[in-house]
Parts: sequence; structure tokens; C-alpha cells
Amino acid sequence: MKEALSAKPAQPANSVGLVSPKTQHFNEALTLESGSTLNGFDLVYETYGQLNADKSNAILICHALSGDHHVAGYHSDSDRKPGWWDSCVGPGKPIDTDKYFVIAPNNLGGCSGSTGPTTMNPDTGQPYGPEFPIVTVGDWVKSQAMLADVLGIERWAAVIGGSLGGMQVMQWSFDYPDRIRNAFVIAAAPKLSTQNIAFNEVARQAIMNDQDFHGGHYNEHNVVPNRGLMLARMLGHITYLSDDVLDEKFGRELRDGRIKFGYDVEFQVESYLRYQGRSFVDRFDANSYLLLTKCLDYFDPASRFGSLASAFRGATAKFYVISFSSDWRFSPARSREILRALLDADQDVTYAEIESKQGHDSFLMPIPRYHEVLRTALNRIHRKL
Amino acid sequence: MKEALSAKPAQPANSVGLVSPKTQHFNEALTLESGSTLNGFDLVYETYGQLNADKSNAILICHALSGDHHVAGYHSDSDRKPGWWDSCVGPGKPIDTDKYFVIAPNNLGGCSGSTGPTTMNPDTGQPYGPEFPIVTVGDWVKSQAMLADVLGIERWAAVIGGSLGGMQVMQWSFDYPDRIRNAFVIAAAPKLSTQNIAFNEVARQAIMNDQDFHGGHYNEHNVVPNRGLMLARMLGHITYLSDDVLDEKFGRELRDGRIKFGYDVEFQVESYLRYQGRSFVDRFDANSYLLLTKCLDYFDPASRFGSLASAFRGATAKFYVISFSSDWRFSPARSREILRALLDADQDVTYAEIESKQGHDSFLMPIPRYHEVLRTALNRIHRKL
Repeated sequence: MKEALSAKPAQPANSVGLVSPKTQHFNEALTLESGSTLNGFDLVYETYGQLNADKSNAILICHALSGDHHVAGYHSDSDRKPGWWDSCVGPGKPIDTDKYFVIAPNNLGGCSGSTGPTTMNPDTGQPYGPEFPIVTVGDWVKSQAMLADVLGIERWAAVIGGSLGGMQVMQWSFDYPDRIRNAFVIAAAPKLSTQNIAFNEVARQAIMNDQDFHGGHYNEHNVVPNRGLMLARMLGHITYLSDDVLDEKFGRELRDGRIKFGYDVEFQVESYLRYQGRSFVDRFDANSYLLLTKCLDYFDPASRFGSLASAFRGATAKFYVISFSSDWRFSPARSREILRALLDADQDVTYAEIESKQGHDSFLMPIPRYHEVLRTALNRIHRKL
Repeated sequence: MKEALSAKPAQPANSVGLVSPKTQHFNEALTLESGSTLNGFDLVYETYGQLNADKSNAILICHALSGDHHVAGYHSDSDRKPGWWDSCVGPGKPIDTDKYFVIAPNNLGGCSGSTGPTTMNPDTGQPYGPEFPIVTVGDWVKSQAMLADVLGIERWAAVIGGSLGGMQVMQWSFDYPDRIRNAFVIAAAPKLSTQNIAFNEVARQAIMNDQDFHGGHYNEHNVVPNRGLMLARMLGHITYLSDDVLDEKFGRELRDGRIKFGYDVEFQVESYLRYQGRSFVDRFDANSYLLLTKCLDYFDPASRFGSLASAFRGATAKFYVISFSSDWRFSPARSREILRALLDADQDVTYAEIESKQGHDSFLMPIPRYHEVLRTALNRIHRKL
């Protein structure tokens, strides 16, 4: 009886429910911005909702640094944690899967199934490891366009992404202006600041300095540079949260109620960070992490087009730019740079600065005004399809 | 002729010139806040200027995390770099050595000569290493008071310190209220924020995870955890500088003028950070660094006294609180917390928020308005001695 009860926990009614990733293989060679070529590749992706007859209701969701294709729903009945944006994507949710057909790929170079450092290099029969070429936001968008071709989607109703995902959304508007009707650029920046690059560099050094890194060939040595990757994640995590939310969550609370004059965990925030670091290494690959930080560093459309406004000049999408008051990684000032460039380029743009406490991570949170902005915009877009 | 010319480079006229550190040995045992005892200890210190007849013109300068006793002047004729606050301390400078007798000790637990992890443990005949007990701001101030006793200084004309040094200044006003006439609390905070502690924890983990750390016993293994200490310093350095000054200094400038799609240094800021990290490991000890970050974490007078205002209630000093607009490590808001507590405690306080670009490091910089505030206050104090 007990077993019968626990065997099939009901998923919430507004969940997309059980989902399975699909894999699309591409035989054609993909020439990357770096000049390297991938001789064929796989993209793993999930979809939610139904594509309508004229294929006009497709939304592409682009993930951020540590995200993947598992945006919503559950992979099994015993799965306790839904996809990373389940609060926003599902039946009746802001990105409403009763109305839209949502596609979420894992990006090239990632470590969740799409071709990357952990997958097999067909030329050698071994995992790519550190030999996997550095990809760019432009390369990602190119591969996403190839996936759209396969699925018969000529034009996205919307491309949506937060953080590094927002950079992909902008890139779509530069490279495939006719294939994107609406662009949602959330908690993003037109390029990394020097400070952003500096933090990325410390994270990379932490990984590459790990005695178990072996120049990226850790698999051959049957080890994993866990300590370096853990440090990188701990550091990243600090920059994802606001000072205030850390203070509110942990303050100066001591785990054992007293100072111990030693180097074991004393403050709750230390315990939290170590936990965050440890759980990350279980699901992420160090070579992928290095590569993704480089992808962030390199994104700089203004340098390619002369100015950010010039970059946006050819766009035909309507833009929605959203920022969060407590985000100090990509602050509202960075989103306003995007807004200003869009205005200078005479583009149609809506801008919302959302009051929030959670820092950069706000873009993942079910903040009522944020979800209302998305819901209202996507409902209006849907009525016009 | 050429040799004769280069043999004795003239030191600037307004420098304190050639200086030599002195060592004061204390035979008496020092019981620390942790409960541990040091059976005798040394304090290394420098002095500049002349103590007047009634010993009323002495100023104590307290150093910050990576500082030491070498505040001003040069150690030899071939010394190219003066002490860390040479811009502010010297004849005719804001802390005027024609008027004041300045004392600057290296703190216990440091690695510049005072008793600490790198000095000999008299009980074992070996360097203390990781066995050196964690000291607190209170322990430092106690040892500084013992030094004042030896030098016959009953009451400081002023105690001055930036950052962690400012915490020592506050501690003087709590623990020895009758021995400090004027307290200069610069770029400080009443306690670390959760984010500050989090960054310290990442720095500590970087050091302790280094394969060459050996639980702090690296000397016995004839190695040094350089990579971890370098990471800690790189990370620290980012938090000492403002986003703007990083952007201004380096922007997204590429060292070789082009993206190379690899993990060697590409952006100038990466090269700068690696250089900062590397030069730090030549002069600093990893066990000391760990200890000093803990000293920062533990400082929390409000928890000891019930509130910060209660902590200040017994003070008799006049306070000068100075903050810098671009400091995000200890922002002006943190200095305003100190100011508010002083006002609540009915203390005499002057507050100046200095417009600056250099972030937390501003307190080391010769910013005209900052130096003018110090000069004016110290001149007035001197007239009243």
C-alpha cells in the first residue's frame, strides 16, 4: 500500500509533466567562428506544447552558463526537481505551453548531451576533452538555426533567454533578423565588463590550477578537477546573488552557534557555498565550464558592427528588455545600454526594470511583476500570430 | 662616473628617507581571545618623526590585510618602492612627520617579522606554521597597547587605519578609550557582510585546496601553495578595485590585439591579475593570509556589546569617518552605519565621503580632497596638543 502510494507522485497540474530529451544529429560540417570545423554534431533538446499548423507558434529558449535543455517538467516519476525554468514554462504559465510550442536545446560545448568536450570525437573515437574547439554565441545561434530548419520552423514567434541566453537572443536578431518576431533579452549585457572578465579568469585559473586538471585530459587520468570546478562555482554563485539576499538568507549566522577559531565551516554562508560547489561538480564538466566562460568573454557585437546600435539596425523583431534592480553581475545599467542602442537604431522596444532582491538569479525566479510582463507580452504576441 | 651617479639615487625631498624596522620583544605571555597563549612575542615596527617631550604627538598607524609596518620611506638607497602609504606620511604630508611621531607595527600573525606562522615557536624550535593561533582585532590592539607602554606613550594623539586597519581604530576606542584622542576610521565597516565573508571563504578554499598546502605544513614539504595564494590574491584584487577603474584601465583590450580562442592570457586584465597574484606570493605567507581573513570575519563589536552604538558609548576620542564613493567592498553605506552608531552614542564625529574612482583601494591613493581632510584635521589636532 505504502509502495503503491509512493510509486507515482502526482506532478503539479500546471506542469508540462513527464518529458524526454530528443537528439538531432547533423551530418553536415559546421565551420566555427574560430576557424575550426565540427564534422557533424548532435543537439539534444526538449519540446513542450504543440506546434500549430502554420508553424507560427514556436518559441526558442536559450540557456545560460550552467543551464541546459531541461527547462520544464520531469524526466521520471521519481524525479524530484523539475527543469530549471519550470516556474515560467508550462500550461497556463507565462510561457504558456497551451499556446506555444517551446523548444530548448542544449548548446554545443555544453555537457548535457549535445556535442561537446564530454562527447565522442568521431575523428579519434575518444571524447573531445580539451580538444573541443571554443565556440561562440554566433556558433550556437547558427546551430540553433539548423535545428529550426530540421523542425520546419521558418520564424520564431519569440526567442527568449536570460544572462548568456539573452546574448543569444541578441545574436539571433543580428544574424537571422527575418527569423525572429520577438526578442526577449533578460538580465543580459551587451558585452562583459572588465570586472566580469576578471571573475571569469579567476574561475578558469581555479580549474586549470587544480592538480587533477592535467591540461584538460583528466579523463585519461581517471580523475576530475573537482576542487577547481567547485571553487569556480562558489565564486560564480557569489556574483549571482545580491549582497542583500545573502545577508537575509545567512547574515553572520554561525553553524554551531559560536566562533571556533579554525578553518572548518563556521558561518552558514560557508556551508551553503561549499554545498553549492559540491553539487555542481556532480553535474558539470570542467572543460565545458572553461569554454562557456570564454563564450561570455568573447561576446561583443559592438566591436563587430562598429557600435551596438549598428548591430541592431537590421533587426525586424520587437524587443523586450528586462533587468532586475538587485543584479550586480549584469546590472540594470547594462540593460539600459542595450535599450539605448535599440532606440538609437529606431527599433521597437519595451523595457522593464523589475524590483527584486535575488541579484542576477532573479531571472530564474517567479517574481510576480516579472512573470506578468512576460505573460502579457506573450499573450499579445499570440493574439497576433 | 656612471656608477658614481647611480650609486645613491636621491630620495624625494618630502620622504622620510631611509628607515629601518625595529623589533620589540615581549617576554610576558599574551592570552588571546581564542584562549590560546603566546609565551612571549615580537612586534616589528617602524617610526618616523620625533616624539615630543610630553609624548603627546604620537600617531599609531594600523595596517590592513596585506600591509605591514613599512608605511613610509625606503629601506635602502637602491630601494625603488617606498612604504605603502608614503604618499600620505612624511615631512609636510597630511600625516606630517615634522609634527608627529608616527609608529607603525606589523600585526601579530602577519608575515613581515612580527610573531606569526613564519616565525619560530619557542616551544618547538620550529616555525609555528598552521599551529599559530588565530588572533583577533582585539588581540592586535592589546599587543599594540603593550608596545605603547614600552615606548612610554600613554595616549595616542591619533590612531589611524584604513579597511581592516579602521577596525583596529574602532577597537582601540572600545578597549582603551582613555588612550586615544582621535580616531580615524577609513574605508572600514562595522563588520563583514555575508558577501565579504563569502569571498574570504572562496579565497581560503583556494589556498587550502592547493595540492602544495599540506594542511598548512608546506614548509616541511619544501613547497609553497603558490597557486592557491595567487588565486586568493587575484580574487581579492577584483574586490579592491571598482568596476569603473578596471574598465578605464583595461577595458576589453586584448594583449595581442586579437581573440586567440584559447586559455592563455588574451585580455589585458587577465595579464594584470596574474601579475598581481604572482608578485603577492613572493611576499606573503599562505597561513598568514588564512589567519588574516578570519580576523576580518570575526570582527563584530555589535555582537559583543549588544549594538554598535553601545560599543562606542564609552569612547572619549573624536572620530573621523571617511569613505569612498566607488568602494564596493566596504561601501559608503557601511561607513554610514558607523557614523549612525557614533551619533546614537552621542560621540563627536566628522564624516567625509570622498568622490573617487579607485574602489576600496582609494584609501591608499593621494586623492586631493581625501588628503586635505586628513591634513586639516591633523593640523587642528596638533595645535591643541
